[in-house]
Amino acid sequence: MEIRVGLVGCGTVGRGLIELLSLKGEFLKERYGVEFKLVLASDSLKGTVSCDSGLDAGELAANLNGKGDLLSMAGAERGAGNLADLLRSLALDVLCEAAPTDHRTGEPGMTILKTALGAGVCAATCSKGAVSLDLGGLKELAAENGALLRYEGSVLSGTPLINLVRGPLAGCSVSRVEGIVNGTTNYILTKMEEGMEYSAALAEAQRLGYAEADPTGDVEGIDPALKVCIMAAEFFGHRLVLSDVSRTGIINVTDGDIRRAAASGRRIKLIAGVEMGESGGAVRGYVAPRAIDISNPLASVSGAANAVSITTDNLGEITITGPGAGKRETAQGLLSDMLDISSWIMGRGRHRH
Amino acid sequence: MEIRVGLVGCGTVGRGLIELLSLKGEFLKERYGVEFKLVLASDSLKGTVSCDSGLDAGELAANLNGKGDLLSMAGAERGAGNLADLLRSLALDVLCEAAPTDHRTGEPGMTILKTALGAGVCAATCSKGAVSLDLGGLKELAAENGALLRYEGSVLSGTPLINLVRGPLAGCSVSRVEGIVNGTTNYILTKMEEGMEYSAALAEAQRLGYAEADPTGDVEGIDPALKVCIMAAEFFGHRLVLSDVSRTGIINVTDGDIRRAAASGRRIKLIAGVEMGESGGAVRGYVAPRAIDISNPLASVSGAANAVSITTDNLGEITITGPGAGKRETAQGLLSDMLDISSWIMGRGRHRH
Repeated sequence: MEIRVGLVGCGTVGRGLIELLSLKGEFLKERYGVEFKLVLASDSLKGTVSCDSGLDAGELAANLNGKGDLLSMAGAERGAGNLADLLRSLALDVLCEAAPTDHRTGEPGMTILKTALGAGVCAATCSKGAVSLDLGGLKELAAENGALLRYEGSVLSGTPLINLVRGPLAGCSVSRVEGIVNGTTNYILTKMEEGMEYSAALAEAQRLGYAEADPTGDVEGIDPALKVCIMAAEFFGHRLVLSDVSRTGIINVTDGDIRRAAASGRRIKLIAGVEMGESGGAVRGYVAPRAIDISNPLASVSGAANAVSITTDNLGEITITGPGAGKRETAQGLLSDMLDISSWIMGRGRHRH
Repeated sequence: MEIRVGLVGCGTVGRGLIELLSLKGEFLKERYGVEFKLVLASDSLKGTVSCDSGLDAGELAANLNGKGDLLSMAGAERGAGNLADLLRSLALDVLCEAAPTDHRTGEPGMTILKTALGAGVCAATCSKGAVSLDLGGLKELAAENGALLRYEGSVLSGTPLINLVRGPLAGCSVSRVEGIVNGTTNYILTKMEEGMEYSAALAEAQRLGYAEADPTGDVEGIDPALKVCIMAAEFFGHRLVLSDVSRTGIINVTDGDIRRAAASGRRIKLIAGVEMGESGGAVRGYVAPRAIDISNPLASVSGAANAVSITTDNLGEITITGPGAGKRETAQGLLSDMLDISSWIMGRGRHRH
């Protein structure tokens, strides 16, 4: 079945998705019976291009390379274009949102997702801004308009968490979800264990592109706290805002702390989590460095990797470890969501015809 | 939607499923819109009972307690009954198979599953006999008859592996799957690390019910090798039989081996895996003790826990850790499959009506 896809946000992850769809087109058709046709690529800085019969992935990739833009492509226009009009005229089945987001407003993702879902178009997103601000509201909008919203990539890039609990762990009740959900700080803590001082480890993380020039979002725990908000909404149907999450970053972790932990068989990790209160009490979100025993599955997670432990009634603790960032890794989060949406659309189609 | 369920095999796991369905009935209805009605419970030793309007879980549990059987329940008959007749007369939607299996013949699971699938009835199984012998053939039979076959519980009890790759990892190509898939041997190796000798550790595992009186299946690696056969069929569409799997158990692992590994920062684990050969070559299955570095996510898996690492193109390595056995844990594998099947039936229903 052909699924018509629009991509909004043509930065690193957007380009990763274009490459993935091109590279794996045959595989996806054969294995899942789905042919994704990319009919729209849009970016507020790089311009907007669409083609009813499908855009050429090679041409898109060549134009988006480095600081390139889409403006030399046939029919391209400046800016993000009028999304509502494009959704309609292109008869999109799925909109993929991969724009960088402002976590205070959730924009531009919030408007993009609302426009798509409001028009009954299914959406997949990997940006945490809108989802961390109001997952409940977005889900409601989707349900009202008969659309599906998916957001696996917003927490651990393509490492399954949201879809793991939704699918394979169906039947379990979840009481706590916690783990290492920020690769930058885990990389810094790992380097400090190897003997680097905090400032040198941070500089190294910046050099490698893990940490931004202003590292506040990572080292003060804002990024993991936003992911905690997503987890609270997803697993407990409970809305937490950033200020509800008790939050300590890693800026005060010293090499002495790390040495003392190691001496007692422990490793310091920045643990982010959310849990139900005792006997159904209030949902509590937290981010803080913690010395965990090396027998804990989270302790073996080094460098920029992520891992999350899910506490359930039927299985006790399940831990999943994998990448927490990356171009292809995050695009995989979108792809997994797109396949889930496609299978839903195919079911709906059977109903229609 | 009501889903009519039959259970064949009322041992530990079967009783776990009866309890789970009773305990979580309201949750399943509310969360997934599914009402499982258990209309058949059958066991070659404990007898067979059915009720068109649903069996009482409490009564079943009370009768199956300890060495009890079903024969005092109304309408019960001795033996497993005629399954083909029961499937038809009870209009089963899903058959759950949880009988102990002979891995040489796959029986009685093989006949039970073939009867159900051949009659177009979906099936979920947690016994590895039939699935490890001929997953490909069973899947073909299911497809020919418009039924679905699910078997999550046959590898890691309820810890997701099969359904993880099928669902949340959709879009990834898998090149290798390996891990610790036998809790008994992992328990023995963990105890040996703590200073016990092999024979004492084995005796302790037997005392705790992890190892059977004849521990051959575990300590000689037959159980993990059968799971390798399932993984080869599932992930590479390739049929391996037990003798195709290169296999070394743990009986020759000495405390000296374990001490030497520890001295170089490693732990000895019984690693079972399957991988694609170079450039699409032959699929290779293996079970053998290996000294792995403590930074490997599999190294932190202690006691009776299981863990599997999946090597993919899009995400690199994903590791999942969780229980590998247990009454409720294995029943959860069946439940997850039953929910997947239910959602498929609901889609099919939309098509029909």
